[in-house]
Amino acid sequence: MASGRDTSRDGWINKLQTLALTRFKWFWAFVQSSPVLSRLANKVLINNAIYKVPTRPNAFSLVTLEPFIPGTDDQRFAAVEGYVTGKGIPKQTDVYTSWESLSDRTYTGRHLPPDPDFNRDGNLPELDDLAVLFKKRRDADNRPVTIYSEKSTLLFPYWVQWFTDGFLRKDGRNPLKNTSNHQIDLSPVYGLTPASTHMLRRFEGGKLKSQILNSEEYPLFYYADPENGIVKPEFEGLYDPLSDEKRLDPALKSKLFAMGVERANVQIGYVMLNVLCLREHNRLCEVLAKAYPAWDDERLFQTARNILMVVIMKIVVEEYINHLTPYNFKFFVDPPLFTKEKWYRTNWMTMEFSLVYRWHSALPDNLIYNGQDMPMVTSLWNNQMVIDRGLGSLFEETCTQPAGRIGLFNTDDFLIAATELASIRLGRLAQMASYNDYRAMAGYPRVTDFNQITSDPEAQTLLKALYGNVDRVEFYVGLNAEDVRDNSALAPLIGRLVGIDAFSQALTNPLLSERIFNAQTFSPVGWEIIHSTRSLADLVNRNTPRQEQPYRVTFYR
Amino acid sequence: MASGRDTSRDGWINKLQTLALTRFKWFWAFVQSSPVLSRLANKVLINNAIYKVPTRPNAFSLVTLEPFIPGTDDQRFAAVEGYVTGKGIPKQTDVYTSWESLSDRTYTGRHLPPDPDFNRDGNLPELDDLAVLFKKRRDADNRPVTIYSEKSTLLFPYWVQWFTDGFLRKDGRNPLKNTSNHQIDLSPVYGLTPASTHMLRRFEGGKLKSQILNSEEYPLFYYADPENGIVKPEFEGLYDPLSDEKRLDPALKSKLFAMGVERANVQIGYVMLNVLCLREHNRLCEVLAKAYPAWDDERLFQTARNILMVVIMKIVVEEYINHLTPYNFKFFVDPPLFTKEKWYRTNWMTMEFSLVYRWHSALPDNLIYNGQDMPMVTSLWNNQMVIDRGLGSLFEETCTQPAGRIGLFNTDDFLIAATELASIRLGRLAQMASYNDYRAMAGYPRVTDFNQITSDPEAQTLLKALYGNVDRVEFYVGLNAEDVRDNSALAPLIGRLVGIDAFSQALTNPLLSERIFNAQTFSPVGWEIIHSTRSLADLVNRNTPRQEQPYRVTFYR
Repeated sequence: MASGRDTSRDGWINKLQTLALTRFKWFWAFVQSSPVLSRLANKVLINNAIYKVPTRPNAFSLVTLEPFIPGTDDQRFAAVEGYVTGKGIPKQTDVYTSWESLSDRTYTGRHLPPDPDFNRDGNLPELDDLAVLFKKRRDADNRPVTIYSEKSTLLFPYWVQWFTDGFLRKDGRNPLKNTSNHQIDLSPVYGLTPASTHMLRRFEGGKLKSQILNSEEYPLFYYADPENGIVKPEFEGLYDPLSDEKRLDPALKSKLFAMGVERANVQIGYVMLNVLCLREHNRLCEVLAKAYPAWDDERLFQTARNILMVVIMKIVVEEYINHLTPYNFKFFVDPPLFTKEKWYRTNWMTMEFSLVYRWHSALPDNLIYNGQDMPMVTSLWNNQMVIDRGLGSLFEETCTQPAGRIGLFNTDDFLIAATELASIRLGRLAQMASYNDYRAMAGYPRVTDFNQITSDPEAQTLLKALYGNVDRVEFYVGLNAEDVRDNSALAPLIGRLVGIDAFSQALTNPLLSERIFNAQTFSPVGWEIIHSTRSLADLVNRNTPRQEQPYRVTFYR
Repeated sequence: MASGRDTSRDGWINKLQTLALTRFKWFWAFVQSSPVLSRLANKVLINNAIYKVPTRPNAFSLVTLEPFIPGTDDQRFAAVEGYVTGKGIPKQTDVYTSWESLSDRTYTGRHLPPDPDFNRDGNLPELDDLAVLFKKRRDADNRPVTIYSEKSTLLFPYWVQWFTDGFLRKDGRNPLKNTSNHQIDLSPVYGLTPASTHMLRRFEGGKLKSQILNSEEYPLFYYADPENGIVKPEFEGLYDPLSDEKRLDPALKSKLFAMGVERANVQIGYVMLNVLCLREHNRLCEVLAKAYPAWDDERLFQTARNILMVVIMKIVVEEYINHLTPYNFKFFVDPPLFTKEKWYRTNWMTMEFSLVYRWHSALPDNLIYNGQDMPMVTSLWNNQMVIDRGLGSLFEETCTQPAGRIGLFNTDDFLIAATELASIRLGRLAQMASYNDYRAMAGYPRVTDFNQITSDPEAQTLLKALYGNVDRVEFYVGLNAEDVRDNSALAPLIGRLVGIDAFSQALTNPLLSERIFNAQTFSPVGWEIIHSTRSLADLVNRNTPRQEQPYRVTFYR
């Protein structure tokens, strides 16, 4: 089994679907050439993706693992800590639906019920023993070997981190909870609460606060006194800084921008996308103010924000999701098609969605900056990189280099404990069902041998040694062990699960709803901008100093 | 026009519908005798009721009247106070959709956008001048004359107050906001937050804390020291007491029960229904514990709560809503019918729903207690009434007396400023559109003359004198001025608007959703209880000492 994978458990309907969607280019070109057929195909294929699993509301959430603890936030935190370390309140071993599991969205949702038996002590490998699955292989000189994606540029993991951090937001004080608004509301740009949004606004012409550095527009700096870690009074309480930020060198601290969430300055890719949105917001305000001179600051702000959110959702579906799939049909945003679907229910981000979306292996160890190789770790909390280079050429350079391939044997040593093992630990804490249970949920036959998961003989051997039986493979490990599909950015189960939550939670955004998605909400000028914006390249090129040649900005290598 | 009303603006489709539904008893009996036809009719008629107006999400909420004010709660409150009195922050006069108006449910929703022009100073009568519309007429001896309902017993207003207070919850600190969970979650019984629920639980056998008084079960008393207004430590922070409660005589205070919300002790009807639910919850726990001896306290509590919520929703639809309508078809709870409806959207209580549901005129000045006439005001904060009498006979006696008729000329003097005029003021603050605009929204032709609203010549004359033109009649006044329909508890526009929000926000309860509404969620025993419970009488009779003759408990005179 050195080459090839036993595909007998892929499921013939799944194989047929993939075949139909990845071949017959002429057929899909024909479908896409007809507005009627293409709308029909769009509806059928998106519904087909979402209805692969039962729809919301889900019967369970992570609240069932933690019955209410009275007391102050600190007391609750202490109790949860005890729980996380296994010494606190008892874990629920009995599985049933409570009103809280149907209504309290501060606890993260879940598709499958907790499986205490699967996660019982002794049934799963020691956490540290799993590191070997994620560590990079070494070359003859004992240097780590990165496996690069055949499909994606470095822009891809940059986008993923930025985009998902807006709604997959673990509560730092309780891993069972979240700080998500459960919407794609651009919280990294606008903040998580009205109070944060208020601090970021200029209250003039609808704009966000900004400054000019090297003739380009950026958010304001966050710190008044970086040496002593004192933020500007106008930004006090904007967010709770991460401990990494608190420990930061004052030189780096002095360049952090005042942006919507605690993670917005964490890596240069995140910063680039946030700066891009700030510029587009302020640009939209100018366009709107010119078209509608009677509008006040509030109306300009609110309308520009609404336009930008929809523009980003269009890019999510039409550029990003189409990049993820290997299909010959290209999805598009067409909200009226879905008003009568039973998946159209109140959003609630799930733990599965969060675990599926941890693509640390897509971030290589090194990046090319200004033509030079540099370690990726240098791009953390380092806003000077974009100030020096300018936004446009940094986007372009990002798109000249490949992303890592998502999967095993491809994570930087220094990230393994903090990301991969932490994700597995979180899965156990949440008592996730097995990889095979999730295959069954999503319409894949259960695998019966390790060679049905991956074609990599080393991975097969390691998985067998660690788990013994395929039924014991954990969700997070199985997800990452699967082979990436041809011409796709993702392995099959990851791809399917991402699609389910992505489509069913993006297309329910109120801005896309029947009575809101129209020129009256966005203004005729905004409506035209929404329809004429198709890609990140559009956004970058209209928000950077004009070039002879537009910047090349793409997810595709 | 002394008798009769000009019905030319009722709308012929509306007339036809009413005719079809209120006549042809044999036809509806036939429909109801066939499970297939009856399910079909139930679906068509409920959808027909809801689709009378555009469905959620609504483009506007009350947040658009109050852009975010930074600062502490107290600072915000001060700013809002200024706003309410017209001296604070400027009112928004420009009408547009913001992200907050689509997402922040702490602000109350609205069906129609604000109408600043209609509500401008000088366009509407002085508030105090409107009191005359609500004041009771006087008899020859100058005693107020109550107009009684031909259809409903006193149980009807008792139920309405209790039931609606669970989800129509104005925030006492800001009239544009609410403290609602936007669900029928029995917050009066279980509290609005997990912290309150926790205080009310016994943590033994799943039960709520209770005590036995005169051999019947009641909630615990709330105060440790009524003289000094000190509550028991176990109930500290359960809710913010109303100022009426704070001012209360210690003798009354000593008998207040520890229940879920600040208004739960306010009137004897509210208390009766809350006590009934507490007994049913604890009874369900015993039944479940017997059937499932392995269940712990948590599972018993959660399952009993889920069962009770659904039982109450069944009573809402099958007993209460059917009482409201004059139809020959009786609605029933059949959740699977509605999974694909586009009205099935995230709940959001509206200001219209709140204004529609203020039926103070249904509460007569007097009630009969223990065979004696006593002023209704004596029934406020007076729990001794139920302790002395017992729950069953108090329910039965309540059903021997009529409710007031909902409408003009029927509100107690002492309630007019605090309820009727306050509601009109709230409508102006919220910049509600006109009565005629709401008629148009709900599918009724605009009226062109006062005699199309009401057949009462005095009401016609007063309305004309106050408003001059029917287009100036306010929403709340118009609603209450309409004639109650034959054999109905309500006037046409009230009835229609109640139906829209009631059905579309009750049937979306997650407990009624496709994957939750089954025997697995409620247990087989609970599932059977849900299906065999049909009325409030069932609940009362199984939670009171056994009688030879069951208590007669009904909304019908």
